[in-house]
Amino acid sequence: MDYVNGPGRNHLFVPGPVNIPDQIIRAMNRNNEDYRSPAIPAMTKILLEDVKKIFKTESGTPFLIPTTGTGAWESALTNTLSPGDRIVSFLIGQFSLLWIDQQQRLNFNVDVIESEWGQGANLDILASKLAEDTAHTIKAICIVHNETATGVTNNLATVRKILDHYNHPALFVVDGVSSICALDFRMDEWGVDVALTGSQKALSLPTGIGIVCASPKALEASKTAKSVRVFFDWKDYLKVYKLGTYWPYTPSIHLLYGLRAALDLIFEEGLENVFARHARLAKATRLAMEAWGLKNCTQKEEWYSDTVTAVLVPPNIDSSEIVRRAWKRYNLSLGLGLNKVAGKVFRIGHLGNLNELQLLGCLAGVEMVLKDVGYPVKLGSGVGAACAYLQNTTPLIPSRI
Amino acid sequence: MDYVNGPGRNHLFVPGPVNIPDQIIRAMNRNNEDYRSPAIPAMTKILLEDVKKIFKTESGTPFLIPTTGTGAWESALTNTLSPGDRIVSFLIGQFSLLWIDQQQRLNFNVDVIESEWGQGANLDILASKLAEDTAHTIKAICIVHNETATGVTNNLATVRKILDHYNHPALFVVDGVSSICALDFRMDEWGVDVALTGSQKALSLPTGIGIVCASPKALEASKTAKSVRVFFDWKDYLKVYKLGTYWPYTPSIHLLYGLRAALDLIFEEGLENVFARHARLAKATRLAMEAWGLKNCTQKEEWYSDTVTAVLVPPNIDSSEIVRRAWKRYNLSLGLGLNKVAGKVFRIGHLGNLNELQLLGCLAGVEMVLKDVGYPVKLGSGVGAACAYLQNTTPLIPSRI
Amino acid sequence: MDYVNGPGRNHLFVPGPVNIPDQIIRAMNRNNEDYRSPAIPAMTKILLEDVKKIFKTESGTPFLIPTTGTGAWESALTNTLSPGDRIVSFLIGQFSLLWIDQQQRLNFNVDVIESEWGQGANLDILASKLAEDTAHTIKAICIVHNETATGVTNNLATVRKILDHYNHPALFVVDGVSSICALDFRMDEWGVDVALTGSQKALSLPTGIGIVCASPKALEASKTAKSVRVFFDWKDYLKVYKLGTYWPYTPSIHLLYGLRAALDLIFEEGLENVFARHARLAKATRLAMEAWGLKNCTQKEEWYSDTVTAVLVPPNIDSSEIVRRAWKRYNLSLGLGLNKVAGKVFRIGHLGNLNELQLLGCLAGVEMVLKDVGYPVKLGSGVGAACAYLQNTTPLIPSRI
Amino acid sequence: MDYVNGPGRNHLFVPGPVNIPDQIIRAMNRNNEDYRSPAIPAMTKILLEDVKKIFKTESGTPFLIPTTGTGAWESALTNTLSPGDRIVSFLIGQFSLLWIDQQQRLNFNVDVIESEWGQGANLDILASKLAEDTAHTIKAICIVHNETATGVTNNLATVRKILDHYNHPALFVVDGVSSICALDFRMDEWGVDVALTGSQKALSLPTGIGIVCASPKALEASKTAKSVRVFFDWKDYLKVYKLGTYWPYTPSIHLLYGLRAALDLIFEEGLENVFARHARLAKATRLAMEAWGLKNCTQKEEWYSDTVTAVLVPPNIDSSEIVRRAWKRYNLSLGLGLNKVAGKVFRIGHLGNLNELQLLGCLAGVEMVLKDVGYPVKLGSGVGAACAYLQNTTPLIPSRI
Repeated sequence: MDYVNGPGRNHLFVPGPVNIPDQIIRAMNRNNEDYRSPAIPAMTKILLEDVKKIFKTESGTPFLIPTTGTGAWESALTNTLSPGDRIVSFLIGQFSLLWIDQQQRLNFNVDVIESEWGQGANLDILASKLAEDTAHTIKAICIVHNETATGVTNNLATVRKILDHYNHPALFVVDGVSSICALDFRMDEWGVDVALTGSQKALSLPTGIGIVCASPKALEASKTAKSVRVFFDWKDYLKVYKLGTYWPYTPSIHLLYGLRAALDLIFEEGLENVFARHARLAKATRLAMEAWGLKNCTQKEEWYSDTVTAVLVPPNIDSSEIVRRAWKRYNLSLGLGLNKVAGKVFRIGHLGNLNELQLLGCLAGVEMVLKDVGYPVKLGSGVGAACAYLQNTTPLIPSRI
Repeated sequence: MDYVNGPGRNHLFVPGPVNIPDQIIRAMNRNNEDYRSPAIPAMTKILLEDVKKIFKTESGTPFLIPTTGTGAWESALTNTLSPGDRIVSFLIGQFSLLWIDQQQRLNFNVDVIESEWGQGANLDILASKLAEDTAHTIKAICIVHNETATGVTNNLATVRKILDHYNHPALFVVDGVSSICALDFRMDEWGVDVALTGSQKALSLPTGIGIVCASPKALEASKTAKSVRVFFDWKDYLKVYKLGTYWPYTPSIHLLYGLRAALDLIFEEGLENVFARHARLAKATRLAMEAWGLKNCTQKEEWYSDTVTAVLVPPNIDSSEIVRRAWKRYNLSLGLGLNKVAGKVFRIGHLGNLNELQLLGCLAGVEMVLKDVGYPVKLGSGVGAACAYLQNTTPLIPSRI
Repeated sequence: MDYVNGPGRNHLFVPGPVNIPDQIIRAMNRNNEDYRSPAIPAMTKILLEDVKKIFKTESGTPFLIPTTGTGAWESALTNTLSPGDRIVSFLIGQFSLLWIDQQQRLNFNVDVIESEWGQGANLDILASKLAEDTAHTIKAICIVHNETATGVTNNLATVRKILDHYNHPALFVVDGVSSICALDFRMDEWGVDVALTGSQKALSLPTGIGIVCASPKALEASKTAKSVRVFFDWKDYLKVYKLGTYWPYTPSIHLLYGLRAALDLIFEEGLENVFARHARLAKATRLAMEAWGLKNCTQKEEWYSDTVTAVLVPPNIDSSEIVRRAWKRYNLSLGLGLNKVAGKVFRIGHLGNLNELQLLGCLAGVEMVLKDVGYPVKLGSGVGAACAYLQNTTPLIPSRI
Repeated sequence: MDYVNGPGRNHLFVPGPVNIPDQIIRAMNRNNEDYRSPAIPAMTKILLEDVKKIFKTESGTPFLIPTTGTGAWESALTNTLSPGDRIVSFLIGQFSLLWIDQQQRLNFNVDVIESEWGQGANLDILASKLAEDTAHTIKAICIVHNETATGVTNNLATVRKILDHYNHPALFVVDGVSSICALDFRMDEWGVDVALTGSQKALSLPTGIGIVCASPKALEASKTAKSVRVFFDWKDYLKVYKLGTYWPYTPSIHLLYGLRAALDLIFEEGLENVFARHARLAKATRLAMEAWGLKNCTQKEEWYSDTVTAVLVPPNIDSSEIVRRAWKRYNLSLGLGLNKVAGKVFRIGHLGNLNELQLLGCLAGVEMVLKDVGYPVKLGSGVGAACAYLQNTTPLIPSRI
């Protein structure tokens, strides 16, 4: 049974789930094991230490929760906040919208700062809200580091500066689902209180681990937070961490071995080199887009995302048709435009364990699909522009020099 | 990196996670895919239909939630009940205890019926409670089909009879984590309202899918249940079922392909044959235990579990030492005694995709470990007793006749 | 341990071994099995029937020999010829040269017809030799269908016509290593007596099966051929075929399951569609080459190969440096120029289970490497030319329409 | 498609191909690679060094030939001998018989020393032949270290002593197919000139590499040996060893990675510990056999094989029926009796990456099958005897202490 047949490889360029490197596929190719044996706790202990490195935190406490990004969101919120708590949240695209929906359903008092889709979080409004909030009624600032729907990266360092400027004690809660391990993320330096990501994004694993990392301040908040929670409760994790058994319920042995392999790959390449590679591939993608005469959904360069590019199509073209044809004709998986930008953008995910020629194959496919749907693209133009940049910037593979 | 080295295969006889058959390991040996392409929804639609067969339901609605058994519990409860609701729950071992802990933390009013560990649920007390409850204050009966900690199987048909006898409308909520796909489970016939299991048990998959199945009555209850929930909310699933996109958030592609392979294996063997095989291997295990002169933690035959046998050891022996030595010397993973029976029982899991010779290897290992720890076992006695039964009852492999 | 690390996938474009599709990797992901059980002979029987289809033969007898192409050559020759036998053999590139070397070391009297590398077999000389050979001293004509070193495809139908014209009984022995399953091959129609291929070429398997197919006339010849042989002796195979045990010695269980998966993929796509896809990708490659201003090593269109293109570089460039840099910088594996064309050509293999975007990624990589080594290529030109052709000719994926 | 379905694992106890450990399966779970890139030669160079350790040789030169044991035989013979050369060869079972058949078909003058099947090589006759051969007409002594058909291990140290005693220069050629990596083998100490094994035996890989190791004297002999050979010619290997490209034709990338993993496992366990484990499991098997009241086909203890036990059955029982039923009913693969001992023995292979409980499961299965076919076995007797021995002798797993 194979639902994606067709000769050759699938070209997976949605912004998650992303391609899993062979080393990880191999690491997960195994039988179950008893998670109560001494082996799995020993492995988990090291994993937890290593996971902190991808958050750039020393003081944080990570949790490897058997869930998705949505569950990681819920874990971040319910462990730190109580029903009725006022939180400031930025609506800038489909994923921040879904998170806000969750925040509201969890009975928080959500103070939404909305931007046009394609713009970043409006930090001026945040500043004015904090300025006004001398009573510290705002308990948390919730922000996506990278909005996957529009390819917008928010400036977290500035958020911290604003909080510090007003000396505001609100928790700083960050969705790093489509950023962590791909974009530079500095939990300790930026004073992030809760950060989270999902295994199927830049870590290049299957879906199934929601990684949540809590600052000491967030852990402290969790002691009094009144939101009802059991499955997502950090308390149960903290208890077994102390006991050295490490798991309050059955983890996926496969994802633990996969995570081990994923971290090994990232550390071997070097975290900063991983970021540089993402920046390089993203820049090449944008150069191709410009060569095609198309616009970035992201309105200003300061917000350009190095993990996903949302490409605006002309009004006479339905971007969904681009995604459909790419899949049906070229075995190329692109991201749909979602909600407000449905039909208006298609998205190229360029995150995870990926290299130049994979991306260039994708860009060539996009060119052909653009032609397929009647857009007057000059074939080779985008790839040529991307090549011109990559040929100047791609380093030799260190192990092969 | 391999934490479980040692020559040969690990002999995994904990009652979950269980051995994954090669066919499933192969099916999951793959790259990620875009879950928004037409392929994954098409696959999911069929999976949902097929999953109903393992619950023996036609009217039920299944949910494949990216979580563990603990999360499946939470999904079952929060979607059907409101804080303060009175529920009757049976405490008969560690897993029912953990579930009750969850029920209490979710703010239900839990009416606990406790039995000695090793006994089944006290249904007489249930009957008297229902008899008294003419006002129908009891909103749900929560019961584990099979208590994994003590190897006790409860009689669900009797629960239904009692409910019907008193014409009581309480929801009938069943944890089938260590039973479904191994023990006969009849959701429709027994009028179960919510049933649930986990992928790493008799389905023989990795951990990661909590399968919850809701009756029409449970779905109806979910419309008014006031427990706060987002990640576990059935509503979001029902919405995407209607849309035909099938996923409210990113599923594990790997577990979907694995589940497909697992169901194919089960249907190919035949669900009733799967049950018969579990009964046969369980009976062989109990015969070995008797030959060793050891007692079943389960106090009466009517409660004997066909998925796990908890073996009582003499007072002068620490059962944890048996588990430790089995792992350290014979690469054999047995289940620890938990909580009240810690040190007093060790557990042999005999569920999932397993055959006679695998079990006999385990039983031989147990004999040697018993001798290791000073118990005067006659080597070969248990295996001989098991063989005597299996040699008379094991059918030919159908495909090889 | 991983000798090919570097982010992302390796881009494998040597003309063998080629990319293995995931379906085949999965099929081979397994334990050993007893090849003397009833299962493996049953499987082999069907495989042998199915393998005949890729040779387009009904009367041929295939042998799945645990060896490489070199061993398949030896099997073809030693089973049909005796030391001292006169054979006509064409030297047109490195692989025909190696085969001739083998023929000479096996003590045949080899009558070599040499062409300039880049040209096809000189069939005029064959014709004159056959015309003269009224005594039928020529026992076999040995020819490569596709010379992998130069990307030259010989016209086998014409060879048969010439043989028929002179009514010459010489055996027609064909190396189809880099053609069968990629180029149309018609064993019965062309009266080929022995044809052979290797698993790691268009079948897209690992190395390890030399597939040799013998016509009834070749089988007859094997009864009297005096070349010494044991491991490669067809007689031992024919004996176990009759017995129904099918293997004279231990086969690779993995490659049998892999071959099953490979044939399933090919039959599912349709053999003629596989040929058309190879023709399409080859044409796109040649168009890119022309756009770069480079020449085909193959001198005339009638010989253009649809499985490998050998690209001539200008005299001031060392083609080996192109191959080296492609691997070191872009994780792209290209074929070296061999022997007479070392340093003068690099080769792009475009055979096996491959699709458009994979090839375009490769072509983009080649463009960048050309620039790297100082060749004044216009970036995007080759990819653009290839896209222009592919965008017009690529069919929709049938299962996705 | 799965020809070996049935619940649970197959219990593979034929004396090859043997169970592949998960670590090796994982290592081979990969795509092809270009064997002409720098990576594969670098890997091969280290493999060749490491392979020497399993032969216990420092002066030997190993060849990793893409073939089976039969091909390895042919390589050993054709590279060192010329047609007509007199060789002394021992016929003690089916595999030595097949090798002698090959020797004869390769046109050597084979002086056969035959023993009753179940006995070892008659070294007294060897001694007298060498004593007589003052003219040194005997060019080679060919002997199997372990006859897989009868479970007989020959004493190679004694062969060397006899050769030295008569100061005879004959080459000492050893088939170590079912011994090397399982039984102590000392190429240098015993002065073995050519030793060979196959990947699917104690190395626990799939079939596909014939490993041949040549002493300096054998290499010297290869320079003048006149047997016709191309595929198996060491000369081509020696040439590419010097060039540093390491492969005269395409190797199986998968088996190279598998071999790397296999050697890592063996070295990690320790070669001497591997031998001790084989001795322990073999002894346990023989104790079980005795407890069943059955006899070893091997007539004297000095010849007992630690890799395979051939069990004699009473005259009224057909051993083939035992093998058939084991497979059909218990998913247990045993070795058939071959040729002279067909119907009279069944064989238990206990070589490769295997542990105690796997073997005990097999022995329990054999007991049940014996009962199935009417042999009056006391169930549990054999397993009990094996357990009694193993419980006293099995060490703790070092990594778990």
